[in-house]
Amino acid sequence: MIFSEEKIDNYMDLALNEAKKAGERKEVPIGCIIVDNQTGEVISVGSNEREETQNAIKHAEIIAIEAACAKVGSWRLEHTSLFVTLEPCPMCAGAIINSRIEEVIFGASDPKAGSVGSINNLLAETRYNHQPEVLSGVKEQEAGDLLRNFFREIRRKK
Amino acid sequence: MIFSEEKIDNYMDLALNEAKKAGERKEVPIGCIIVDNQTGEVISVGSNEREETQNAIKHAEIIAIEAACAKVGSWRLEHTSLFVTLEPCPMCAGAIINSRIEEVIFGASDPKAGSVGSINNLLAETRYNHQPEVLSGVKEQEAGDLLRNFFREIRRKK
Repeated sequence: MIFSEEKIDNYMDLALNEAKKAGERKEVPIGCIIVDNQTGEVISVGSNEREETQNAIKHAEIIAIEAACAKVGSWRLEHTSLFVTLEPCPMCAGAIINSRIEEVIFGASDPKAGSVGSINNLLAETRYNHQPEVLSGVKEQEAGDLLRNFFREIRRKK
Repeated sequence: MIFSEEKIDNYMDLALNEAKKAGERKEVPIGCIIVDNQTGEVISVGSNEREETQNAIKHAEIIAIEAACAKVGSWRLEHTSLFVTLEPCPMCAGAIINSRIEEVIFGASDPKAGSVGSINNLLAETRYNHQPEVLSGVKEQEAGDLLRNFFREIRRKK
């Protein structure tokens, strides 16, 4: 990993903050940030917008990747790290491969759609043309609690 | 398959036409259309825009899926078929799962990134919450020729 354990925790706090914002907008609370590995600067953020946009593509990671491409002016995000509160789905894992992100750090695992260790591990597939480094379980308790509380609240209201 | 063999060929011709448009814009020639399974109407089209937008997400399928969601006003594209000239990559296969597209028809196989039979088959993975029907090899010669001619021309110019 490029960043120290303390910095990784701090970056994940920023991703968790994005997740909370999504929850306040009644979206499933998932948040993401992308960091420039050379400067440490946060170059983009994203949070789940699927319901409000009614767009199947608008996961936190996709929003952050598109914003990072716009910021750096390239589809190649080679010297960046992506921090996300939940294990990426196949679409987002594929977007990470396609954008050549160097490192991926995620929080909670997702047994239902997680494609970075749960259902399969697309980011370890050497037949794709890019394999990022991966660190899992960073602040997974906080990330998981956000999700569990969100769904508990929905069930309570029904 | 919902549509007849003749209709499938006609729809793939429309996707091939989108691919040609991408090639004329110096993009890798890949095209996609999405059809309403109930009316047969083409509800969206997409062609590869990665280079011109410098956005890693802008594959033909993603563009068509986002446009289809906007058209129907929902992230669920349950009663639709997606026609694409090249086997989907993991990102696009994941987007197809996420948008609940009913049927996927593709042309040429992609040994480098194809995730619907070549490297793996994400659309047959029953642990994801949706498995579309898949038909491969439709007009694969035309779809493959478009790609081979495009790359031959690039090598010739170098």
